[in-house]
Order: sequence, then structure tokens, then C-alpha cells
Amino acid sequence: MDRSSGRRRGSGRERRSVGAFSQMPWSPPSNPYAPLDVISADQVEAIHNASLEVLEKIGMDFLHPEAHDILRKAGVAVTPGSNRLRFDRGFIEEAVAKAPSEFVLHARNPAHHIPVGGNRMAICSVGSAPNVSDLEGGRRDGNAKDYDDLLRLTQIFNCVHVLAGYPVEPVDLPPETRHLDCLRSAAVLTDKFFHAYSLGRTRILDGIEIARIARGISEEQLSREPSLFSVVNTSSPLRLDNPMIEGCIEMARRNQPIAVTPFTLSGAMAPATIAGALVQQNAEALATIAFLQTVNPGTPCFYGGFTSNVDMKSGAPAFGTPEYAKAALAGGQLARRYRIPYRSSNVNASNCVDAQAAYESEMSIWAASLGHVNLMMHGAGWLEGGLTASFEKFVLDCELLQMMEAFLQPIVVDEDTLGFAAMADVGPGGHFFGTAHTLERYETAFYAPVLSDWRNFESWEEAGSEDATIRAHKLYRRLLAEFEPPPLDPAIKEELDAFVERRTREGGAKAA
Amino acid sequence: MDRSSGRRRGSGRERRSVGAFSQMPWSPPSNPYAPLDVISADQVEAIHNASLEVLEKIGMDFLHPEAHDILRKAGVAVTPGSNRLRFDRGFIEEAVAKAPSEFVLHARNPAHHIPVGGNRMAICSVGSAPNVSDLEGGRRDGNAKDYDDLLRLTQIFNCVHVLAGYPVEPVDLPPETRHLDCLRSAAVLTDKFFHAYSLGRTRILDGIEIARIARGISEEQLSREPSLFSVVNTSSPLRLDNPMIEGCIEMARRNQPIAVTPFTLSGAMAPATIAGALVQQNAEALATIAFLQTVNPGTPCFYGGFTSNVDMKSGAPAFGTPEYAKAALAGGQLARRYRIPYRSSNVNASNCVDAQAAYESEMSIWAASLGHVNLMMHGAGWLEGGLTASFEKFVLDCELLQMMEAFLQPIVVDEDTLGFAAMADVGPGGHFFGTAHTLERYETAFYAPVLSDWRNFESWEEAGSEDATIRAHKLYRRLLAEFEPPPLDPAIKEELDAFVERRTREGGAKAA
Repeated sequence: MDRSSGRRRGSGRERRSVGAFSQMPWSPPSNPYAPLDVISADQVEAIHNASLEVLEKIGMDFLHPEAHDILRKAGVAVTPGSNRLRFDRGFIEEAVAKAPSEFVLHARNPAHHIPVGGNRMAICSVGSAPNVSDLEGGRRDGNAKDYDDLLRLTQIFNCVHVLAGYPVEPVDLPPETRHLDCLRSAAVLTDKFFHAYSLGRTRILDGIEIARIARGISEEQLSREPSLFSVVNTSSPLRLDNPMIEGCIEMARRNQPIAVTPFTLSGAMAPATIAGALVQQNAEALATIAFLQTVNPGTPCFYGGFTSNVDMKSGAPAFGTPEYAKAALAGGQLARRYRIPYRSSNVNASNCVDAQAAYESEMSIWAASLGHVNLMMHGAGWLEGGLTASFEKFVLDCELLQMMEAFLQPIVVDEDTLGFAAMADVGPGGHFFGTAHTLERYETAFYAPVLSDWRNFESWEEAGSEDATIRAHKLYRRLLAEFEPPPLDPAIKEELDAFVERRTREGGAKAA
Repeated sequence: MDRSSGRRRGSGRERRSVGAFSQMPWSPPSNPYAPLDVISADQVEAIHNASLEVLEKIGMDFLHPEAHDILRKAGVAVTPGSNRLRFDRGFIEEAVAKAPSEFVLHARNPAHHIPVGGNRMAICSVGSAPNVSDLEGGRRDGNAKDYDDLLRLTQIFNCVHVLAGYPVEPVDLPPETRHLDCLRSAAVLTDKFFHAYSLGRTRILDGIEIARIARGISEEQLSREPSLFSVVNTSSPLRLDNPMIEGCIEMARRNQPIAVTPFTLSGAMAPATIAGALVQQNAEALATIAFLQTVNPGTPCFYGGFTSNVDMKSGAPAFGTPEYAKAALAGGQLARRYRIPYRSSNVNASNCVDAQAAYESEMSIWAASLGHVNLMMHGAGWLEGGLTASFEKFVLDCELLQMMEAFLQPIVVDEDTLGFAAMADVGPGGHFFGTAHTLERYETAFYAPVLSDWRNFESWEEAGSEDATIRAHKLYRRLLAEFEPPPLDPAIKEELDAFVERRTREGGAKAA
């Protein structure tokens, strides 16, 4: 039986080679298995204690006076003229304990709301790549057309739950008003939960307003319902920069979630040991989360882990390495210690969409999933250490993510699935193809891929010997051609356009 | 710093593009982490009980009268004129309990002995592919030259610990004497533990003799020291064929290890539910292991799991699927219930060495490793559902296997690695590249890949934009060009040659 014959007989080669597109339904997974612990409870405590010692004795630089004012009022000793803050362990522990363990991310489409915490897992699209690539156009600067197309893929794939930042930076849009255009696209082309950058006060306030308009809610309701999120990256080692601080203060004041993510690259911005990099990650994350809880107790936060290592021979950052995987799992253990939802990523350092891109991503996805990640950033489309958003990688990642989602559906063990009757029916030497037990399950028994090609060699060769990357290319082109934007209330669309027009007239971020 | 400059300045593009070859030392890993359980203890018991019910009420066909004689003497009821045997659960449980939990595989090079059991893990090369392929020569019938070359790769890579069957079937060698030539090559080109096929009495006895000669030991010592192994595949559902029975009886009589592996493809040779396929796998494995323990109590056995699923649309076998991964993990839980070492595999269904080959293999490797596999068959080189042994896939797999080996080395957490002094030294906003803490670890801090390319895009593009498959091709060609066979006592070589010559003159397997 030809694998595509049942659905689209006579369709062209492109359709035949990828099969009719069908995907898993929207269903952010819950991990039913125990997390994998790579360090002992004592070792978790050793990292915890060392990171508190770092914050007490070495301290951390907060490069904004407003942060100093806020923390001084909370009793943190501030030395005038210095950015350096040293934190008592009591202050850190008490403040961090105020971060909630669970919250809900509210999308403009309520079907796409995402409960966060516990064993639940949500997946994000790639964020913040300066370049974009596909097989046909090669690698190019980020631009508005590709930006929109990556938003469309984010909307199409059910296994991508969150739009986490600009998939690619559209440098052809003016920097002062880019955030307005980009976030309007996010609110129009997708109906999923999205993100705004904490790059100063103006941009984040514009982002919050666009999220509010898109959901058609009041400011008061927004402050009760997380409606967009932002990422705060520390400037490792042990520094938090001015624009990030401005942005995240406004987010915290409005109770909007923040993923706090130190970028602790072991051997470069962090010690050349995974234990040391984890200590620094933990110190930076705890100090930043404690700060946000001081701004507004109960602000939803993610504990972010992004510890990887450099290639010691070249200094190049490496991702999806064995060290990365161990750090991602240990990061989950630390996040669970503080009962704060965990953010990890799907990363790789390959320069093209090849076997390396796949295996480094699998290392990341397995580690994040077994570490009970709650928010997997860069889930689909990240290539080349984050320097490129790739269309083919987006499709490839969706296959990997769907497979993990299917893996996280537990084996059903009951009298019917144990299959005694089927085995008695077939008997030794028989075949299960035509049995009632099999036919009943024909449509739903097993995971159906979007990208994998399981035809025999001869059929595959006859159809053009297309590898997974070529198939991903054809699939993404077809999906974009067939894209229809999600429904949007015309009044909301009008309000969005009016807001963006007004803010553009005012000069966007320049007006600040 | 160019990644290859420190080692081979001025070498050609091929060397530059793959870097100087260095690999991890020989060190079959021990898994320090808890196994991942995908079913509960109650569900394990449900599968156990259902499989005993299958053996009691449906039974299993053993297609050889000698098996019936052996089992009749042990009290199993045998109906004259029927191949069907039905087993009391008491008989199965008592017999299976005789299988040892631990044993040692003895190679001709004692440095390559492999202790089996517990958390220990050994990796095998690809076995039994009818075709072979590489980028240059394409896909072709198995042949003696490629057979030898795949043996050479098996010997070269430290992360491959066992030669598990013919990597490819050399169909240009006469079938009657092929096993003699093949096993002599195994004993000469490698010094690792190897395998002979249980295809009738003659071939397996020749294999045992070649293993004995290669190790330079007596028959009596061989019967104390497992010196080669064989795989018994049941002919699922619920059947064990004649030549397999003949071979494994001889192996068991001489105390040589047997990996008992039902091929329970869910939806084809097993029920279309993973629970049902596991019941059948378990029934077939237990009956066969019980039989071997009846032949010779204490015979070393592996509990083999090979449950996967078909593509329901085409009937094509699929590998490395989510269902496969869950079955591999549940298989490990069953093997541990019986305290019998566990055999799983590294499988995929891709038709070429692409992203699909990598991600399906990663699904298999993670599942096997987290399931505490003791013997990972088809670890390196398996492609296309086992129909092809691929040279590039061999190299790719060695990267995946080394990465898993490095992942299984636990994070070291002590005062030095926690890195407080390094962080105090560098301080906020600094850099760890030049610190003493980093320089001390320059050579050993992180996993060094054999295949991954971490250069930046521009350097990679300038060097020819080679993807991982092209790099694997170049690396395998270079490694073969540099291959030197392991030392072998000339007296042993002479004895091997004399044995093979005599048996060839006698007609090989035809003489039986």
C-alpha cells in the first residue's frame, strides 16, 4: 500500500513526497514520568549554598539607579557610586519564595491559554536570530517578509505553543518603530501567547498595550492575567544591564511573567566547570528573581537555564553537547528546589540543517523534557547557535517536538491493550495486519510523522531521493502557500492599527 | 584560534575540515543515573502475568524435535505430532531464575573484555545488513571488501565495544564457507568480542572453535569464559525456528551467551498496541530463555527487546519512533524484573544519512541508555531499517555514542569545581578565558567531538560548506587509509588459517 494513496491520489510529486499534511492536535504535554536527576540532593544544596555565597561575598552589578532605590528600600545595603550589590542569603531566600509555582499564560485565543508549572510543558518558536535561511534563498539578513512567514509557521504548527520573541530580527524595519510593527504582526498573524523585549521602558509598555488590545481586556484584567512575557538575560558574569532592568520593572509592576535567563557559557562567561557555571547561573537567576519579587511580590517568573560550554580549542560556543544536557537537567533540579517554573531551550550549533542540527537538538530536547522543562524556548527553527532562524529547521524541530509529545503519552496498559485475545486469534506464525484488534486502531495506533519518510529505498529513490531537509523545505513552502490567518475581531484589528499608527507618528521608541 | 591549527598546521582540506582525529578512550560506560520508568510496577506485573497466560493457554511453536525432547525431560507436556508447547508459569519462572545477572564477555584482547550486567553498557557495531553504502559508491550488495572495511571501523572506534554479527552480508563469498572467512576476518581485523550466527549446528560450532583459537584457550576454559555470543530471534508471533534452535542448543551447552530477541513489530507480527507487543515480546523471550536454562542451567542470556511499530498507512516498519522509545524503556523494566541483562538497539528507518537518520537514532539511543541497556546492538552503522550498513552512518553514530558516553559521566561537584575562587577572581563583567581555573582544564574540560563542526558560518562556508554526512565520509576514508590491524600472535594466526582451510576443504556448512 502506498503511504499517500489513501488520501491524495494523483497529487503532484511535492505532495507525494511529503504526504498529506496532518499533525498532532494542540495539546501542550504533561510529563507523566519522573524527572531525571543528574546530581544528588546534596549536590543541589552545595550549588545553592555556593551561589548564595557568591551573592553575599562577590555580589552582582545592577546597572540602573532605580534598581538600587528599590532594593535599598527592601533593606539591601547599597554603596553610593557603585553598581555592586551584595545580598544576604536571608533576603534572597525570602524574596525568591514569593515567586508563584503556577500561573496561566493568556493568549488572545482562549483555546491557546497555557497553564504553567508542575509537569506541564510549553514550546516556543525560535527567537532573536539576526539571520534567516532556507534552501532556496540561502542565508540572508533578517527582514520583515521572513519575519511574517516565521510567524505563520508558528501559528500553523500545533506543537508550537508560544511565540517567544522575534523569530528573526527584521532589520529592514526602522529600529524606533520596529517593535510596533513586529508586535502588531504577532497579534494578527498568530493567536498564541507572545513576548516583548525588555529593551527599555517605552518598548515594553508598547508591547504590554498591544497584548492588552489584542485580548480586548482592561488594564486591570491584564494585571490579573499574564498576557505577554519577556526574557531577562543577565550580562554574565554577575551583571544586569540598564535596558533589561527598565523593561522588567514595568513587566513586574503589571504582574506579567519574566523568564530570567543567565547566559553562563562555561569557559567564557562562567567557570570552565559545569558545577561552577551552575553556581553562577543560580546566583544570577536568584538575585534577579529576588529583585523582581521585590518590585512586585508574586510576579510570575521562570527560572531559566542556558548553561553550555565553549569549544576549548576555538572559543566557539557549543550547544546540545553532553555538558549542555547535564546542565539542563541539573537546572531543572534547581528550579524545582525553588518551586519556580523552569525554562530551557532547543539548541544546536550546526551551520546547516543536517544530521548535526538534528542530534544536537535531540540532546537539548531530551534533556529539557526529562528535566521537566515548563517553557522550552527556541523550540522550532533555531540554527547555528542562534545566529540563524531556518525554515527547514523549523519543520524538522516540529517533527522532533511532536515525537517527544507522543513519547510523553504513557503506554496504556489494560485488558484490551494487553492483547491476549488478539494473540489467541492470530496464533503462532500468523499475522496481525487484518485482525479486528488492529483494524480498530488503524487511524490512531501510532505516531504519524510530518517529516519522516518510511517508504522503502526503491520508492524513495524513484521519488527523487529527497533527504529530510529537502522534504522540510517543500513542506514549509506548501504550508505557507495554504496559510490563513486566525480570525480576529475587526474592532480589535482597528484598535491595534490605530495604536501602532499613533505610536509610529510619535516616533516609537525614539519618543522616550 | 582555528580549531585545527594546534595539531596539523598545513594539512590538506580534508584534514582541516574534519580536524585531527581524536576520540574518547576505551571505556564501556556505567550509567550513574536512575533508569527511566515509563510504566508502573503494577503495569510490569500485568505484562508479566499476561505473557505467562499466553504461554500457558496459547503456547509457542518450537520447530525442532530436539527441543521437544529436552523440554519433555524437564516436565513440559509435549503433544506428539505437534510443534506447539504450552508452559506452566511455574516452569517458566523457575527456569528463568537460573539465568545469571552478571557475566563477562571475553575478547582475544583482555583489555577489551566486557563485564555485563547492572548499570554497565556495551555498544555493538551494525549487524546483518544485506546492503552497504557510502556517499561515493552509493548503495550496493554486501561484499567481502566492505565487510572487512566495516570490521576495521569497528576496531578503530573505542566507543564500539563488540562486533555483533556481520556488519554486512558478503554475498560474493560462497554461502557454505562464508562463515569461516567472515569469522576469521573478525578474529584478525579486530581484537574485540564477537558473534556467530545460530544458523544450524555446523556454523555455530565452527564459530565457537574460531573464538577458542583466537583466544588461545582450551575448550574447558572456553566453557567457563563466554568468548563469543549469538542472537536468537524468535519468528514472531510465538515461534522459534529450526536452525536457531540447533545453534542455540550448542551455544548453551558450552555456556556461551545468547541474546534472545523477539522481533515484535506492533501491528504486523505483534498486536497493534505497545502493551500487547510487550506481552508477546515477554512471552517469547521468557519461553526461549527458559528453554536455554533447561539445556544448561546458568547459560548467560540477554533479555532482548526489539518492539517497534509499522506505519499503519503502508505496513512499512518504523524505527526510533515514540512507540519504539517507550517499548525500549519498558523492555528495560521487564529485563530488570528478571535480573537478566538487557539488549536493545540503535535503529532508524531513514533511506540516507540525514537529519531523520540522526533523530531516529537519538530516540533509540536515549531510550536504550535511560532504560539501562547492557548490550546496545546495531550501535554504529545501521541505516534504512537494517537493510543497509552505511559507512557515514557508522561515523555519525560514533559521535552520538560518544556524546551519550560523556553524558553518562556525572557532573563533578566539589569545592574546586563549584568555582567560587574563579568567580571572585574574574568578578562581574569579566571573562573566564584566561583564568588559572580555565587554563588548568584546557585539555579535558569538555567533550571533544569527532564529527560536529562548531566553526562560525563564515569559516565553515569558506571551507566548502560541508554537512555532517560529507564530513563523516571524509573521516571514514581517512581512518581506513590509516588503519593498522591489532597485533595477533603468529601461531594463533597460523592455527586460524589451518582451521579455516581444513573446514573449507571439507565443504564448510555443506558438510553437515
